[in-house]
Amino acid sequence: MAGSTYGTIFKITTWGESHGKALGVVIDGCPAGLALNEADIQCYLDRRKPGASNIATPRKEADSVEILSGVFEGRTTGTPISLIVHNTSQISKDYSEIASYYRPGHADYTFDSKYGFRDYRGGGRSSGRETIGRVAAGAIACKILLSLGITVCAYTRSIGPIEADLSKFDPQAILNTPTAMPDLSADKAARDYLETIKQETDSAGGCMECIVEGMPAGIGDPVFEKLDANLAKAIMSIGAVKAVEIGDGHQVAARRGHENNDAFRMEDGVVKKATNHGGGISGGISDGDAIVLRAYVKPTPSIFRTQQTVNQSGEEISINIKGRHDPIIVPRAVVVMECMTAITILDALLINMSAKMDSIVSFYHK
Amino acid sequence: MAGSTYGTIFKITTWGESHGKALGVVIDGCPAGLALNEADIQCYLDRRKPGASNIATPRKEADSVEILSGVFEGRTTGTPISLIVHNTSQISKDYSEIASYYRPGHADYTFDSKYGFRDYRGGGRSSGRETIGRVAAGAIACKILLSLGITVCAYTRSIGPIEADLSKFDPQAILNTPTAMPDLSADKAARDYLETIKQETDSAGGCMECIVEGMPAGIGDPVFEKLDANLAKAIMSIGAVKAVEIGDGHQVAARRGHENNDAFRMEDGVVKKATNHGGGISGGISDGDAIVLRAYVKPTPSIFRTQQTVNQSGEEISINIKGRHDPIIVPRAVVVMECMTAITILDALLINMSAKMDSIVSFYHK
Amino acid sequence: MAGSTYGTIFKITTWGESHGKALGVVIDGCPAGLALNEADIQCYLDRRKPGASNIATPRKEADSVEILSGVFEGRTTGTPISLIVHNTSQISKDYSEIASYYRPGHADYTFDSKYGFRDYRGGGRSSGRETIGRVAAGAIACKILLSLGITVCAYTRSIGPIEADLSKFDPQAILNTPTAMPDLSADKAARDYLETIKQETDSAGGCMECIVEGMPAGIGDPVFEKLDANLAKAIMSIGAVKAVEIGDGHQVAARRGHENNDAFRMEDGVVKKATNHGGGISGGISDGDAIVLRAYVKPTPSIFRTQQTVNQSGEEISINIKGRHDPIIVPRAVVVMECMTAITILDALLINMSAKMDSIVSFYHK
Amino acid sequence: MAGSTYGTIFKITTWGESHGKALGVVIDGCPAGLALNEADIQCYLDRRKPGASNIATPRKEADSVEILSGVFEGRTTGTPISLIVHNTSQISKDYSEIASYYRPGHADYTFDSKYGFRDYRGGGRSSGRETIGRVAAGAIACKILLSLGITVCAYTRSIGPIEADLSKFDPQAILNTPTAMPDLSADKAARDYLETIKQETDSAGGCMECIVEGMPAGIGDPVFEKLDANLAKAIMSIGAVKAVEIGDGHQVAARRGHENNDAFRMEDGVVKKATNHGGGISGGISDGDAIVLRAYVKPTPSIFRTQQTVNQSGEEISINIKGRHDPIIVPRAVVVMECMTAITILDALLINMSAKMDSIVSFYHK
Repeated sequence: MAGSTYGTIFKITTWGESHGKALGVVIDGCPAGLALNEADIQCYLDRRKPGASNIATPRKEADSVEILSGVFEGRTTGTPISLIVHNTSQISKDYSEIASYYRPGHADYTFDSKYGFRDYRGGGRSSGRETIGRVAAGAIACKILLSLGITVCAYTRSIGPIEADLSKFDPQAILNTPTAMPDLSADKAARDYLETIKQETDSAGGCMECIVEGMPAGIGDPVFEKLDANLAKAIMSIGAVKAVEIGDGHQVAARRGHENNDAFRMEDGVVKKATNHGGGISGGISDGDAIVLRAYVKPTPSIFRTQQTVNQSGEEISINIKGRHDPIIVPRAVVVMECMTAITILDALLINMSAKMDSIVSFYHK
Repeated sequence: MAGSTYGTIFKITTWGESHGKALGVVIDGCPAGLALNEADIQCYLDRRKPGASNIATPRKEADSVEILSGVFEGRTTGTPISLIVHNTSQISKDYSEIASYYRPGHADYTFDSKYGFRDYRGGGRSSGRETIGRVAAGAIACKILLSLGITVCAYTRSIGPIEADLSKFDPQAILNTPTAMPDLSADKAARDYLETIKQETDSAGGCMECIVEGMPAGIGDPVFEKLDANLAKAIMSIGAVKAVEIGDGHQVAARRGHENNDAFRMEDGVVKKATNHGGGISGGISDGDAIVLRAYVKPTPSIFRTQQTVNQSGEEISINIKGRHDPIIVPRAVVVMECMTAITILDALLINMSAKMDSIVSFYHK
Repeated sequence: MAGSTYGTIFKITTWGESHGKALGVVIDGCPAGLALNEADIQCYLDRRKPGASNIATPRKEADSVEILSGVFEGRTTGTPISLIVHNTSQISKDYSEIASYYRPGHADYTFDSKYGFRDYRGGGRSSGRETIGRVAAGAIACKILLSLGITVCAYTRSIGPIEADLSKFDPQAILNTPTAMPDLSADKAARDYLETIKQETDSAGGCMECIVEGMPAGIGDPVFEKLDANLAKAIMSIGAVKAVEIGDGHQVAARRGHENNDAFRMEDGVVKKATNHGGGISGGISDGDAIVLRAYVKPTPSIFRTQQTVNQSGEEISINIKGRHDPIIVPRAVVVMECMTAITILDALLINMSAKMDSIVSFYHK
Repeated sequence: MAGSTYGTIFKITTWGESHGKALGVVIDGCPAGLALNEADIQCYLDRRKPGASNIATPRKEADSVEILSGVFEGRTTGTPISLIVHNTSQISKDYSEIASYYRPGHADYTFDSKYGFRDYRGGGRSSGRETIGRVAAGAIACKILLSLGITVCAYTRSIGPIEADLSKFDPQAILNTPTAMPDLSADKAARDYLETIKQETDSAGGCMECIVEGMPAGIGDPVFEKLDANLAKAIMSIGAVKAVEIGDGHQVAARRGHENNDAFRMEDGVVKKATNHGGGISGGISDGDAIVLRAYVKPTPSIFRTQQTVNQSGEEISINIKGRHDPIIVPRAVVVMECMTAITILDALLINMSAKMDSIVSFYHK
């Protein structure tokens, strides 16, 4: 099955493995006339690069993107945009050990079950490097959204027990701290925590949050193509995410109706809400308020202590994973969440253009 | 946009509004040769019917299903199965008031924003009655899964502060209690709680859980069509669901790697896991263990106390909603979760048949 | 596989068999705000009804359509429109004979090969009655296109050796003659021809043509979603069609370039073409000229003379088909061609709204 | 809209323009375990290369394919296969003239109408070089089909007035003659004809035919996903094709039923047909006989004589096209037809695996 294609009108197809020649993405259905160059995309890719700090893996990955098609004289032509990132730092090491057994928390066993064998080098297609294509495509989606006055911003909400204090929200901190937290003191505490975790040859989980601002009301579709349903799929498709929520999320289960309902009110002649427990979506359709999403991410499964597992011969064995692995996935996944959200939101906006007869008639009679 | 179609091979299209003539579903891509009659479907529809107890709305809805096509001499033919449920108890009442304003927590405002107007009778397409088509189709998916040795079972995990004790798991209780809880003492406590809530003209949220057993390893696809991503979409598309999680879900964010990894071990010559924190899916592909899902549901937004909102003229007003409304959504949504899970799992199984060259060659050379 | 769904934004799903309880269609993605009632649809269904003349089968089929959902206070709501036509004249006759063998030119053998068995009553899903859903949906597409100034008109171009003379084109004749020819003298000649054919217990083939006028330039997509490619699929999916062509069609194979190129010229400040060999589409995208399609239809396979075939036991047998069958398919298929063309054109128009950044920015900033 | 993706399970996404950096294709959903290397693909690409004779353009295009992902240790892994062909011979010439006007018979005007501007270098995305991705993907589809005992073979049926005599069918001639005709004497006559055409600064049309042998019965789906409907779309999506037909095609319109019906008969215990007017498909489903398709291709629109057109300023002008252009499209399009047919057939085979309950139960219980 073609699992590497996402979107209806703004459709992306990613490809590539951790240790193959290259990774990339084809974006088809990008509207014509968008000013676009490699720098627009590179700055997003740089946010998912490792090596920025001592909490990330010390691998050096240049991850330079090249536009191969779909842009002419600096503008998108409406035809497929092919983007490629060559793998440069993948070392030819001995994989015979890792090839023979199933690492706990990784997709080794499930890939073998499905396909009969797997590209075991660095996780192959199930590696976090798979997200390069998502981020490259998402950079374009973000640029289009910006021209519509819509911003998408994701950040680390918590790392292990350390939670960002949103009353100290500092957007620059997201880009400048190694934790991608929007709160400098939480970032400091989280780095200390991660240092301890590393010394204990362990890893940590965390939570990331994404806010969409400037969203018009009326976007998304009822029933199966609800905007929140598509966002849930988009975010849950990011490796290591185990829970997705919108607005107040899992906390609503313990609420009463009078606490959870968002009262409508008027502000400058526009319908607004007094609160935003719903997270900006009602009945699957945006209500004009900020869209608020959260994703809970498991700890990095590769830890540097002895673990129990089985090998391909069906023997129970003890293993010690080697290599370069971040003790936490969240900080590098934040930009992936931002990009998957942007792609989903943009696709819904494009689809929505044909929702009303009035719009269609005026579009074609203009 | 066509938001009412779901699935790739086993594809369902639902239709109908709360107070229209009828609701229904077309199931296309159902394999040929399945024994099927209306009773197979009716027993699932009966589980979502209101009126079973004093915690559900006192409306009487027969919701009798009729098979209009796709079944011949008691077996599915492989062509579309059209199922219809006629609306019989929808009263012609005066909707002029509800038509003029936006109920907090409902999709009135977002439908108006998207489409310019709405069918305001009983929520129209955004009503919970929309799920009739999902459940009718899901009954068929469940029957097919059963013939493959796969069972899907959903139940109420919590209502407000009352949580089911799974050590007292009683599968009959799910079907026989008004709360759909698998624990008789929690059911009793929850009913008492709901009685209090009702007297306080309020409503309650809750959590539902779904377990898939008998699942083979190797089902689902990497990247965007991960099995958990599709399940997240399927479950989040159910009205009032605000969070979806797999396995240990949002709790993984506070975990350490050594606590969260599921060690592999051998059992009777088969690869198994010592724990199931991952919820039966790794890298988007099933690992042969039970699949565990959870959904968090907001309190019923229709509460019988004064609320603040705005009307279509842009005036801030106070409203008092009347009518028949459950104080909790969860018990009737449990079967919807079960059905959406079944449809998603089945579709993944059908798609998976062409994953390996070996399988294809032996299929066509048989 | 779900073969009964067609379209991307304006998406239709048809269901029903020749001798089942009913047939119908769900139209999802129809824009909101279109004035619509049953009469808008019935007039199209009436054009595919038999019994209008002695060249058509003497069956009486009321084929009255009922709108079950998606229309409120006379306008489409943007949610799925479910249409149903009850089967009323299907006689319970003895099908044991037809059930046991494979009629030449019919899909009996291929359905058995695919599904293991079939609904043999009147052809089941492979019956021409399957087109009821297409025509009901197409009536809505035609109404939307009309509001955009686009007309779709199909007619019989030839029956056996009798060809319509387009210099005598009379649009009323299409609706008023039993042959659906736009030329009264050709209609007369064709009826005489068909009378002879019937007396010889034989049947005739023919050609139908469809013209789309008022089409804006720029509609359709390059590569796989070319407008002519989608039209070819739409028309070839009509039972008994064996060839589809655009513009001058198969005749271009014998042409030279200087004869076949359409020179551009200016007319009242608008780009026009001196000729229309291309049939209004170039590179898969409309050029603003009339779109011209042709479909070649095989003779009715049910003929009232002895034929050789095999039965389900693998014995070679002689058969004599009984029942009610038109000696020609074309006149009743003309409206189906018109409807499939309209649905395809409309979907392309809706998809096209997001082709350019300019359009998107002005749509959302208005 | 994403017009560059084709297929449901075996899904291809092509990208690239005539004079961009590269062209390529991503094949997603290719079954795991297929032995595959670049040579398997290169031999198909070589068949669409120009420069093989004096009837083709004298451009030299290496068109060497490189596998970037999805193949590990010589076998497909089930994840996306990314293939790239770098553009090497595209000369930087002055395109200012061609940029300013609309060439008759080309997609210049329609691209400008749709997108507002176009990549005018060598036709951009509407160039015949777009088919590189189709052929590279088709080579893989053909290899899989071969392992199922299915062969797909396309050839030139006619060039201008010269028709191949199929009684002299020589499969080697298809690969060895510059016309791709399966008849050496017709090849000779056609080459003479094309020489004359070139001297007259003109171009010629032609017809290509494709035969699929070894096809099992029962493949394809009723109604909209008929196998012939999908083939019609696949073939009509090839640039310059103006008509597509199956079996006896447009000739059936002049036939009588008794001439056109294919009688069933038994052969070695298997159901066969006495004739194959239907072209191996009935009711949209394969009948086990050879599938026979034909496509009619217009003459090359670029001819070296003065033509009338308009420029972007809306002025009527005379132009003389320069450059390197084949006087006939057909011989190089034959392999494209073969590949599009193979991709379509393969996808239908993969989809068909879940048609019957029996098959599904035995697949998962094995």
